[in-house]
Amino acid sequence: MNYRMIRNILGWLLIFECGFMVVPAVTAIVYGESQIWHFLATMLLCGGIGGLCVLQKPKSSVLYAREGFVIVSLSWIVLSAFGALPFFLSGSIPNYVDALFETVSGFTTTGASILTEVESMPKCMLMWRSFTHWVGGMGVLVFIMAFVPLSGGQNMHIMKAETPGPSVSKLVPRVKTTALILYSIYLVMTFVMFILLLFGNMSVFEALNTAFGTAGTGGFGIRNSSFADFPPYCQVVVTVFMLLFSVNFSCYYLFLLGKLKDGFNSELRRFIYIVGIAILVITLNVRGMFDTLGEALRHVAFTVASVISTTGFATADFNLWPELSRTLLVLIMFIGGCAGSTSGGLKISRLMIFFRSAFTELGNLIHPHRVKRVTIDGHPVEPAVVRITNVYMAWYILLFAVSFILISLEDHDLITNFTAVTATVNNIGPGLGLVGPTGNFAFFSIPSKLVLIFDMLAGRLGIFSMLALFSPATWRK
Amino acid sequence: MNYRMIRNILGWLLIFECGFMVVPAVTAIVYGESQIWHFLATMLLCGGIGGLCVLQKPKSSVLYAREGFVIVSLSWIVLSAFGALPFFLSGSIPNYVDALFETVSGFTTTGASILTEVESMPKCMLMWRSFTHWVGGMGVLVFIMAFVPLSGGQNMHIMKAETPGPSVSKLVPRVKTTALILYSIYLVMTFVMFILLLFGNMSVFEALNTAFGTAGTGGFGIRNSSFADFPPYCQVVVTVFMLLFSVNFSCYYLFLLGKLKDGFNSELRRFIYIVGIAILVITLNVRGMFDTLGEALRHVAFTVASVISTTGFATADFNLWPELSRTLLVLIMFIGGCAGSTSGGLKISRLMIFFRSAFTELGNLIHPHRVKRVTIDGHPVEPAVVRITNVYMAWYILLFAVSFILISLEDHDLITNFTAVTATVNNIGPGLGLVGPTGNFAFFSIPSKLVLIFDMLAGRLGIFSMLALFSPATWRK
Repeated sequence: MNYRMIRNILGWLLIFECGFMVVPAVTAIVYGESQIWHFLATMLLCGGIGGLCVLQKPKSSVLYAREGFVIVSLSWIVLSAFGALPFFLSGSIPNYVDALFETVSGFTTTGASILTEVESMPKCMLMWRSFTHWVGGMGVLVFIMAFVPLSGGQNMHIMKAETPGPSVSKLVPRVKTTALILYSIYLVMTFVMFILLLFGNMSVFEALNTAFGTAGTGGFGIRNSSFADFPPYCQVVVTVFMLLFSVNFSCYYLFLLGKLKDGFNSELRRFIYIVGIAILVITLNVRGMFDTLGEALRHVAFTVASVISTTGFATADFNLWPELSRTLLVLIMFIGGCAGSTSGGLKISRLMIFFRSAFTELGNLIHPHRVKRVTIDGHPVEPAVVRITNVYMAWYILLFAVSFILISLEDHDLITNFTAVTATVNNIGPGLGLVGPTGNFAFFSIPSKLVLIFDMLAGRLGIFSMLALFSPATWRK
Repeated sequence: MNYRMIRNILGWLLIFECGFMVVPAVTAIVYGESQIWHFLATMLLCGGIGGLCVLQKPKSSVLYAREGFVIVSLSWIVLSAFGALPFFLSGSIPNYVDALFETVSGFTTTGASILTEVESMPKCMLMWRSFTHWVGGMGVLVFIMAFVPLSGGQNMHIMKAETPGPSVSKLVPRVKTTALILYSIYLVMTFVMFILLLFGNMSVFEALNTAFGTAGTGGFGIRNSSFADFPPYCQVVVTVFMLLFSVNFSCYYLFLLGKLKDGFNSELRRFIYIVGIAILVITLNVRGMFDTLGEALRHVAFTVASVISTTGFATADFNLWPELSRTLLVLIMFIGGCAGSTSGGLKISRLMIFFRSAFTELGNLIHPHRVKRVTIDGHPVEPAVVRITNVYMAWYILLFAVSFILISLEDHDLITNFTAVTATVNNIGPGLGLVGPTGNFAFFSIPSKLVLIFDMLAGRLGIFSMLALFSPATWRK
C-alpha cells in the first residue's frame, strides 16, 4: 500500500475543500452572516492539514487497484468529515452525526435531510449544502485530477472508481483532458440553467442553489415546501435540467463533435422510453387529483424526472398518490439515470448489461451449442464486465438487505424502512411513508443514521470502494 | 423439436394423474360424497387421452436441453389444467381460473388459496388439494421416471429442470435409481410423520392431509384457522417436519450410508444457523404478545419453519407482529430451504453461490493478479454454474418487478402487492396485508390471478423452463 501517495492525494483534497468553502464564505459576507467565522476556521484547518500533507512528495507515484479504492472511499469520508464542521461549529446542526449525515447526503447528491425546517437556516449554510451537491455530482477527485499534476497513468483507477456507472471510457487519450472536458460541459450546463432560472424571477441566491442542486442531481431544497411554491416556469426548467443531467456527459461531447448517431446510444434511448412511459402511466393514474390535465402532467413530469434522476426535489406529495403510481416511482428509484451522469440509482447501462446477459444466457441454455455473447450497441461486452455487473448486483442486494434489517431494529413501518434504504443507497433523497417528500430523516437513531451514511457513500461510489476500505484483503501485505 | 417424444411423456403424465386421483376418489367413497363422479369423469378423461398419446411409440427418444424445458413446463401446465377439473366440474370452485389457481398452488406447493372457507368443502376435495402438494413436492416427472421405462440417458435434463435448486447430482450412476431412492426417503418420512400425528389424536383424514401438505412444504390447511386450533404436540411435530423436508434429500441418503460429515455440508449448516437466529430474534421481538416464553417460542418456531420451508401453515397471525419480525419474515421468504428439498424460495445453495461469487470477485478486484474461484465445501464451483446462478437472479428480479407492476394495476396496498408476488414466486402461500395468514387470494382479478399462476409455476420450476416455453428461440428450427 502506497501510504505516502494516499496522504498526498488526501492533502490535495483538503486544499480543494478549503477552496470550495470560498463559495459559502462569500455568501456569508454578502448577507452579513456571522457564520463566516466558522467557515474561515474550517478553511484554515483544511488548508493547514492539506498543506502539510502535500509538502512531502511521495517517493513513488504508482497506484494499484486497491490504492484506487482506498483513495476514493477515504477521500469521500474525509471530505464529508471536514465538510460537516461548519454546520456543527456554528450550531446550525448541533449534533455532529446529523451534520455528517447532511454533508454526506450533500456530497453523494442524495439530498436526504435531517433538517425539519430549512428556511430559518443561515443563507451561507444553505449555499454550502447545495454546493456540496455540485462538487459531488461529477466527482471531486475527477475535479482535482483536471487541475493537479498527479502521477503518471494510474489515475484511470480513480476515475473509474469515482464516476457513476459501468461505462466510463476516456473520451480522449489523456485522463486529465477527459476530466477537463467533462467538467467544462458540467459548468456550462449549470451556468445556462442558472441564467434560465433568473428569467423566472428567482433571486441570484435561489437560482444558484437550485442550479447547484439540480446539476448534481442532489435535491436539497431551500424552502420547506421544496419546489411546490416556485412558479410553473421554474418547475419546467428544473424538470428539463434534471433529465439533462441524468444523461451520460460523453453523449454531449459526441453531440458537440457532430457524432449524433453515436451520442444517441441505446442507453440514452432507453432512458427516454422509460421516462416517457412512466410520465404517461402515472399522469393517467393521478389525473383526478389535479384540476387540469396540464397541471397533472407538470407535477408528474417533475416527479418522474426528480425520481429517475435521483434528485429528489418535489412539487407534490407523491406519498399520497395511488398505489400504482407509488409502486412505479419506487421501481424507478432503483433504475436511476445513465452511467457517466451525475445521477444515482443502478444506472440504465448496468441494468442493460445485467438483463441482457439474462436473455443471452437463456438462449445459450436453450441452444447449448450456439454460445452467444452479450452485446450493447452492436459491440460485445467483455465477459469481465458482465461478471462484475452481476457481482455488483449481488453486493447491492446484500447491502440493501443488511441495511434494511439494521434499520428495522427501530420500530418504524415497513414502507418507511424499505424506502429509507432505497432513497439513500440510490442517492435519491425522499422515499415514502415517514421519509416521503414532506418528511425527513431526523427521527432515525444515531446507529440507523450511520447505516444510512454508509449506504449513501456506497451507493455513490459503486459499493466496491467502500467495501474494499473495510476488507481485510486490502490491508494484507 | 421431438414432438412425438413430448407427446409420449405428456401421455404418461396423464395416466399417472389418473392414478393420483385414486386417492381423492377413495376419500369420496369413504365419506360417501357425491363428488366421486367428478373424479371418475376426470380420471376417464386423463386415462383416455393419456392412453392415446402413449400408444404410438416415438421414432427417436433423443431429448435435447430445449425439449427438457418444454416437457417440464408443459407437464406442469397440463397436470394443473386437468387437476383443476374436479374442483370446477363439481362446482366446489365455480370459476375455472380460480380452480386452476388452486391446483397450480397445490402442485407447485405454494399453498396460496382463493378459498375463503375450507371447512365446508367436501373431504375428497380437501384430500385432492393436499395430495397435489405431495405429488408436486418431489416433482411429478421424477416420479414418472422412477417407474416408466423412458428413453436412454437424457432424463437428466428433465430431472435437473424439475428438481428445485442448483445442486442436483446423481446419487448413483443411474437416474432411475436416484429417483427411486429419493422417492423412497420421501415416502418413509411422510409415513413416519403421519404416524406421529395420529399419536396427537388427529383423525386419519387430518393426519394424512397434514402429512401431505407438510411433506410437499405446501401449506393448504383443512381448517379455517390453519393450524392455530391443533394441540401443541401436533404443532411441534409439524414444525420439526417442515424443517426436515427443507433439507436436501441427498443429505439423508449420505446419512444412511454413514457419511455424516459429507451430509452435514455447508448448505445444511447455514440453514440451521439461519433458522436458529431467526427464531431467537423474533421470539425476543414478540415476547410480550404471548403469555409465556414457551408459547412465544412455539409460535415463532412454527412460523419461521413454515416461512423458510415455504410451507405456509400458520398458528399465529404474523401480519400483526412488530415491524422487525415482519421484515425478517419477508426476508426469510426469499431465502427458502436447501436445494434438492421440497421447499421453495431461492434456496440456500443458490444464494451461497451468488454471494460467495460477490466476495470472491471483490477480492479479485482488490488483487487483480491473484484470481480466485468460488468454492463450496472446498470444491471449486464451475464458472458456468456461477454464471447461470447470476442469470437466474437477473430473471428472478425481472420476473418479480414485472409481476409487481402488473399486480399493482389493481389498487391494493403496496405491501399486499409486494408480498403477494413474494409468496407466489417463492411458493410460500401467505404474505402480509390482505394476503396475510388470515387472508386469501380470492379478491384478485382474473388477470392478476393469471400473473400469479405464472409466478407459482416459474418459481417452482426454476424460471428457465417457463421462460423457454414462451421463448421464440425454443421453437425456431
